[in-house]
Amino acid sequence: MVGVKALTFDVFGTVVDWRSSVILEGEELSRRRGFDTDWESFADTWRREGYAGGMEKVRRGELPWMKVDALHSIMLVRLLAERRITGLSDAEIDHLNHVWHRLRPWPDVPKGLDRLRARFIVAALSNGNVALLTNMAKNGGFSWDCVLSAELAGVFKPDPGCYHTAAELLDLRPEQVMMVAAHKADLRAAQAVGFKAAFVLRPDEFGPAGTPDLAPDPSFDYVATDLLDLARQLGC
Amino acid sequence: MVGVKALTFDVFGTVVDWRSSVILEGEELSRRRGFDTDWESFADTWRREGYAGGMEKVRRGELPWMKVDALHSIMLVRLLAERRITGLSDAEIDHLNHVWHRLRPWPDVPKGLDRLRARFIVAALSNGNVALLTNMAKNGGFSWDCVLSAELAGVFKPDPGCYHTAAELLDLRPEQVMMVAAHKADLRAAQAVGFKAAFVLRPDEFGPAGTPDLAPDPSFDYVATDLLDLARQLGC
Repeated sequence: MVGVKALTFDVFGTVVDWRSSVILEGEELSRRRGFDTDWESFADTWRREGYAGGMEKVRRGELPWMKVDALHSIMLVRLLAERRITGLSDAEIDHLNHVWHRLRPWPDVPKGLDRLRARFIVAALSNGNVALLTNMAKNGGFSWDCVLSAELAGVFKPDPGCYHTAAELLDLRPEQVMMVAAHKADLRAAQAVGFKAAFVLRPDEFGPAGTPDLAPDPSFDYVATDLLDLARQLGC
Repeated sequence: MVGVKALTFDVFGTVVDWRSSVILEGEELSRRRGFDTDWESFADTWRREGYAGGMEKVRRGELPWMKVDALHSIMLVRLLAERRITGLSDAEIDHLNHVWHRLRPWPDVPKGLDRLRARFIVAALSNGNVALLTNMAKNGGFSWDCVLSAELAGVFKPDPGCYHTAAELLDLRPEQVMMVAAHKADLRAAQAVGFKAAFVLRPDEFGPAGTPDLAPDPSFDYVATDLLDLARQLGC
């Protein structure tokens, strides 16, 4: 990949297994505090309506700009009320909201990022806020050269401004940057501003019943089964 | 230091030995291209008039906001002309301007930062632009959890907005952040917005004839001879 200097990574789903991490912590909390709920659907709804739905409201102007932490919190409070989960302290609810700072990486990630870092600038480029991404890497035992975020652009992916801001902060031309993501919409938006694109297959992102779109797109520069495979293909 | 979650680091002088790095590369360039100039005064003038003087012009509105890379470039072109150093290609001049991306860390830095990262969020907080700081860490073999920069605030240190932006991006209250710097003005400005302060003594920053102000200030929370000493004092 001649000319590519930096790899920018989608994080939720591409780097970390958000679903199983939320379910695991939720089930531990249920056991400890003696209540029962379906944490699989809890995680899925939190993600779909809190995160994706929350960002959509920000895009439409129905909510002001806010950190993803705040979008997660709005939905968490609603989900707890809907499921009649009461008796959690404010500190416990806040801790649960920060489960998104403690998502576990897919097994290939720590070593895969290290190998890629030997040859490229390796940066997060997520809709997650800077603190979330920074804490997640520390908790998960992996490292970025640089944490970039929609928070620095003031617009969420796939708004082109988010990718433009990343290239500008890295002081690179768009074609010197390759977006790495498990989601085609993210890659296509990055390509639209001139980035290269690497598609990482994460068949388990949405759980056993999930149906992620894994069909390769001929416009992508790379298709990889995980980050170690991507490193191998890139000669790292 | 109960309650401190993150350490934010000044970089030029505190983490890297800018002066000897610039002199070393400059002298190599002189030998290779067969010209002579005093690289000690070159480095000092570039730093004082290009970097410090350039930021002062931005503060006063005499120059628009720009990356430190661009401030360095303006002064480099002027210095080369003043010293009648001709015959360098545009690529050579650009490469020389990026010497600030290749500054060498003080010997205690790679291990010191790693030890501090085991217990704290460790972030750069420099007037250097994000790309400069990111490349510098890669070239120098040390790692940040997060690269914060005046570039993200749109104002240079010691403007309070720079420290406020850092705390906001880390999602911490000011008293949960400690500024680490070899320069009192930086620490005092950080303290003014509520940060804790750790003073690191770098007696050699300005070379053998330099006279850095090394007198401890009783308001500083820590005074350390280097980052390993700071790690030890912080129990890392």
